[in-house]
Amino acid sequence: MIVEMRRGATQEQIDAVIERARKYGFDTQLNIGTDKVVVAILGSDTGMVPTEVFGVLPGVESVTRIMRPYKLASLEFKSEPTQVQVGDVIVGGKRVIVMAGPCSIESPEQLRATARHVKQHGASIIRGGAFKPRTSPFSFQGLGEEGVRLLGQLRQEMHVPVVSEIMDVRHLDVMVEHVDLLQIGARNMQNYTLLRAVGQSGKPCILKRGLAATITEWLQAADYLLAVGGSVILCERGIRTFEPSTRFTLDIAAVGVVKRNSHLPVIIDPSHAAGHYEIVPTLARAAVAAGADGLLIEVHPDPTNALSDGLQSLTFSDFARLMLEMKAIAAAIGRSI
Amino acid sequence: MIVEMRRGATQEQIDAVIERARKYGFDTQLNIGTDKVVVAILGSDTGMVPTEVFGVLPGVESVTRIMRPYKLASLEFKSEPTQVQVGDVIVGGKRVIVMAGPCSIESPEQLRATARHVKQHGASIIRGGAFKPRTSPFSFQGLGEEGVRLLGQLRQEMHVPVVSEIMDVRHLDVMVEHVDLLQIGARNMQNYTLLRAVGQSGKPCILKRGLAATITEWLQAADYLLAVGGSVILCERGIRTFEPSTRFTLDIAAVGVVKRNSHLPVIIDPSHAAGHYEIVPTLARAAVAAGADGLLIEVHPDPTNALSDGLQSLTFSDFARLMLEMKAIAAAIGRSI
Amino acid sequence: MIVEMRRGATQEQIDAVIERARKYGFDTQLNIGTDKVVVAILGSDTGMVPTEVFGVLPGVESVTRIMRPYKLASLEFKSEPTQVQVGDVIVGGKRVIVMAGPCSIESPEQLRATARHVKQHGASIIRGGAFKPRTSPFSFQGLGEEGVRLLGQLRQEMHVPVVSEIMDVRHLDVMVEHVDLLQIGARNMQNYTLLRAVGQSGKPCILKRGLAATITEWLQAADYLLAVGGSVILCERGIRTFEPSTRFTLDIAAVGVVKRNSHLPVIIDPSHAAGHYEIVPTLARAAVAAGADGLLIEVHPDPTNALSDGLQSLTFSDFARLMLEMKAIAAAIGRSI
Amino acid sequence: MIVEMRRGATQEQIDAVIERARKYGFDTQLNIGTDKVVVAILGSDTGMVPTEVFGVLPGVESVTRIMRPYKLASLEFKSEPTQVQVGDVIVGGKRVIVMAGPCSIESPEQLRATARHVKQHGASIIRGGAFKPRTSPFSFQGLGEEGVRLLGQLRQEMHVPVVSEIMDVRHLDVMVEHVDLLQIGARNMQNYTLLRAVGQSGKPCILKRGLAATITEWLQAADYLLAVGGSVILCERGIRTFEPSTRFTLDIAAVGVVKRNSHLPVIIDPSHAAGHYEIVPTLARAAVAAGADGLLIEVHPDPTNALSDGLQSLTFSDFARLMLEMKAIAAAIGRSI
Repeated sequence: MIVEMRRGATQEQIDAVIERARKYGFDTQLNIGTDKVVVAILGSDTGMVPTEVFGVLPGVESVTRIMRPYKLASLEFKSEPTQVQVGDVIVGGKRVIVMAGPCSIESPEQLRATARHVKQHGASIIRGGAFKPRTSPFSFQGLGEEGVRLLGQLRQEMHVPVVSEIMDVRHLDVMVEHVDLLQIGARNMQNYTLLRAVGQSGKPCILKRGLAATITEWLQAADYLLAVGGSVILCERGIRTFEPSTRFTLDIAAVGVVKRNSHLPVIIDPSHAAGHYEIVPTLARAAVAAGADGLLIEVHPDPTNALSDGLQSLTFSDFARLMLEMKAIAAAIGRSI
Repeated sequence: MIVEMRRGATQEQIDAVIERARKYGFDTQLNIGTDKVVVAILGSDTGMVPTEVFGVLPGVESVTRIMRPYKLASLEFKSEPTQVQVGDVIVGGKRVIVMAGPCSIESPEQLRATARHVKQHGASIIRGGAFKPRTSPFSFQGLGEEGVRLLGQLRQEMHVPVVSEIMDVRHLDVMVEHVDLLQIGARNMQNYTLLRAVGQSGKPCILKRGLAATITEWLQAADYLLAVGGSVILCERGIRTFEPSTRFTLDIAAVGVVKRNSHLPVIIDPSHAAGHYEIVPTLARAAVAAGADGLLIEVHPDPTNALSDGLQSLTFSDFARLMLEMKAIAAAIGRSI
Repeated sequence: MIVEMRRGATQEQIDAVIERARKYGFDTQLNIGTDKVVVAILGSDTGMVPTEVFGVLPGVESVTRIMRPYKLASLEFKSEPTQVQVGDVIVGGKRVIVMAGPCSIESPEQLRATARHVKQHGASIIRGGAFKPRTSPFSFQGLGEEGVRLLGQLRQEMHVPVVSEIMDVRHLDVMVEHVDLLQIGARNMQNYTLLRAVGQSGKPCILKRGLAATITEWLQAADYLLAVGGSVILCERGIRTFEPSTRFTLDIAAVGVVKRNSHLPVIIDPSHAAGHYEIVPTLARAAVAAGADGLLIEVHPDPTNALSDGLQSLTFSDFARLMLEMKAIAAAIGRSI
Repeated sequence: MIVEMRRGATQEQIDAVIERARKYGFDTQLNIGTDKVVVAILGSDTGMVPTEVFGVLPGVESVTRIMRPYKLASLEFKSEPTQVQVGDVIVGGKRVIVMAGPCSIESPEQLRATARHVKQHGASIIRGGAFKPRTSPFSFQGLGEEGVRLLGQLRQEMHVPVVSEIMDVRHLDVMVEHVDLLQIGARNMQNYTLLRAVGQSGKPCILKRGLAATITEWLQAADYLLAVGGSVILCERGIRTFEPSTRFTLDIAAVGVVKRNSHLPVIIDPSHAAGHYEIVPTLARAAVAAGADGLLIEVHPDPTNALSDGLQSLTFSDFARLMLEMKAIAAAIGRSI
């Protein structure tokens, strides 16, 4: 951490900075410029201390962080890529893992038909929403526990791992019983109560990036999960920007930035980012080429009658076509789907 | 709602749009341009239906919403300004209500000293954090239930209403017992589980705007609370933008936009928006002049040793000076503090 | 255009809206809901009229645009994809066109060596900056006219088209003489003086998206060029968001959105978006897979000693490796490089 | 500047950083942590050197700037507030300067009537647009030179300074002849050709903040003007964010941030930020309370028939009422209008 003193800061003010650094167990080094004094705070754990600890001291102009404020998620903490096991599927290996299924589970038939189709065309994990966070209280809120149980049945019938979003710690038990992979939604990325509970549950999870979260904050949220023994797959699903033509702006560079800073696997959700079925394939193809470890794609047997997010759901034939394209791209970069 | 058909859409496709509108109980009207067909979907409840219900139909180019997607929070639903009673304090009246106190409650002494000071200089409600959402799992997480009880004692001793943030539905009982006003934080604005529980609790609440939420989404979240009988004070606390010099960008126009569209009172949190004590007074003065119904300000007896957010906390003397400035501005626009 | 009247708007106010529509030559249709009156303004040219023409009238609540506000750039104006000819190279065909070269031209040797290398590995057009827009007045500002002349020589020696940025209408003559393709930078996307001059010059141009421009505004800027006979290649180069880990956030979805709304070819600049050579390949691969018609890539013989943007420049060997990857991806989606 | 080396960086790589620092005339100091080496680059001019000069060197992980990248605009360069003289009006003193008038000059009568009204109610400088940057090529583009001449006549008749936007260096001569204060629009904040010409013209100017420019970049642009002898008034006019309910999001905190970092006066344009006449007063009042040195407000005798930006223009009576409110607020904070 670098503490820049104001021009004309007193020796006493400088000493107070050094004293505080010592209290935290850090060394310091003084850079005395012609204009102003800069105090370097040294120690491998400076990333864990908020900058304001020094920023509040009198005579301090600014505090700049050098070490990243996350630790367990960082490539410096663990230099080998992490592979997350979901049932018998490995996320983070050479194979690009496609997770697909309906936005909301609407009926056993709808879920089963979709699961069969996507599995047949190469999906490895089945997704299905049971508890749905909806912007309006007047919208369909999901089948709830019944939906979770339907997923549990499907997974036994079809021998395929299933993933679903958890929104409330009170649903943890039923989710843990029936689901292989828990999803923490973008709106809950900083719901620390939920993070801790999921991290301790013994189940791996997908941590979606908050729609206004920086990559650094996302990795700090991963730290919450890792600190209690969690197993984490990161998922970029679009961030909020001024551009209205897509629902969110997919930050495709996040794939490269995560790989450069973290050992965790990272997947892409092209469906929520695009918000429209005609744009989903563009983003899905880009994700594979960029090096994502997987995708989370919404598919529906009849999108025009879907109870939620029909506009961003692919039809069966759209999905089959996209899988062919993605397989070709994966092969071109030395991976498989 | 306005459904724009693609150029060359078939009669059958147009009929499907009309048919779906009828199913929802809406009337339709056809605008046949030289280029393309536009279907107007008519009815006072079209705001409650997602646009994608029509967007998914074949031959549809775009769907544009005319009616606002929130209802109970809207000025059209209730044209008189709502006043929210917190203990014996009215929020939303002529008086601008200042809520002040420490970011985190650290000890009975710290809380009591701060409360006394801010009350003496004109604050009407005491704020204090017990459960703290922190970006890093390694930061101070608040005193928890003990903090809530300290607030409860303070309120009895000093006969002043108190406000504190609720993060977990499992804390609802203890919060309801000791606190007059529940605060829903920006990160939980779309935590619908929490919204419903708070709305049903019988306590009024502050609903902070999510850091990437539009004003429309904020009012939709208010609908969740209002739909179950909740009583809501809106709070703008800065949105996330590309500008790094403040912690968030205070959207001061939100005061005017909310007043133009909703009957709910709206207050400003200059502390979290600014992130730095030197910028807080700028924003607080602007808030009063803009017409905010109140402010939520962090004050600490010794910010340089605060356990959280010391950098954005005002000292006692800073707060006293700011109150004088704000009182003068309030008087200039015909209000009081 | 849809004009929503306020609840309780008078007949006189409604008539004023209708009257104004007539003045512009538009038809109108009244939708009388239970709550409020909505006036549909009909006509194929409503996209050309600012919404505020109606928004200012008394009794109007809101005005919503249905028709896009651009015309010549739209797919509705011209349904066949446009191919832009640059020397003997076609942009917008089946082949993905790579334009590569140094950020700034520094010397004849540096330009020639880079051009030879990138051409040999598959680049079709050579880029080189002569006039440089720099954030700081204390930075290197480019070789100016001398740089343009060096490009002109190179193009004759190597029989390859060249592209360079124009920043000032006073440079138009020298640029037109020596350069095949003019580039309008992101900061000048709405420099209408420049747009008109370039559009009239007879040379094709690259129109970079402004760093805070919506896709709609970008296509409106293209209209400025097209309206005076210009020939346009769109270039997405990253937009400004809150995420600091890359220089800009590449909006990869823009490729799909442009293809869905416009006939113009669209290319990607991964160098400026990434801002760091380790992230450039991630974005470049994604661009090809997404369906971009070309790329604009910065390459330097010795990035550590580049006079500008060295951090985002690829070395010769990095570029050669990336070209192999991109060729494989292009082949996978049925295109070539 | 702080250069963080990668873990395991070699001595040779560290030496290359030190060597490069020396070339620029900077001292260095090594901080050897347990984990990695950090090199502090010392010297009062490090703010003038791009961080990438070090970022491109092998073994470098990141480079962090401590010194601000602007110089002449900084409070460290000049600690006394700058006052800019426009005719006989001082901007940056105790008086808050209101500049008001029509968005576009449409006729001598419209300009004169508006000028008379706003002057009578307390405006000190008359604004009027002659050259208009319009998003669509099909919109009214202003009266051009004729408009400038009308302003020149007005200023002689009424003995009041006038301000107008310059978009093209080729208009500089006519503008300098007839106008007291040149305005550089948000879209031209980084049009360096224009900045240099205006800075050398001998006329003071308003530098509007780019709609996606950070405050730091804005002050760097001011450096371009100051470096060639220009005299600068900064103007915040709203930045682009995801919020659609106002045209732009007014960054009211910018007033405080500029005052904390620069000696230049700063004014607010509430009209362009709001985009709607009902929100303009909210922002204008907030600006005065925040401490802005002036305002730039659009007023029109008949906004419903304005040729541009009528929706954000105040009527005569709206303006008169707002002036009363602003005068009261100015008095409350010890200033006048």
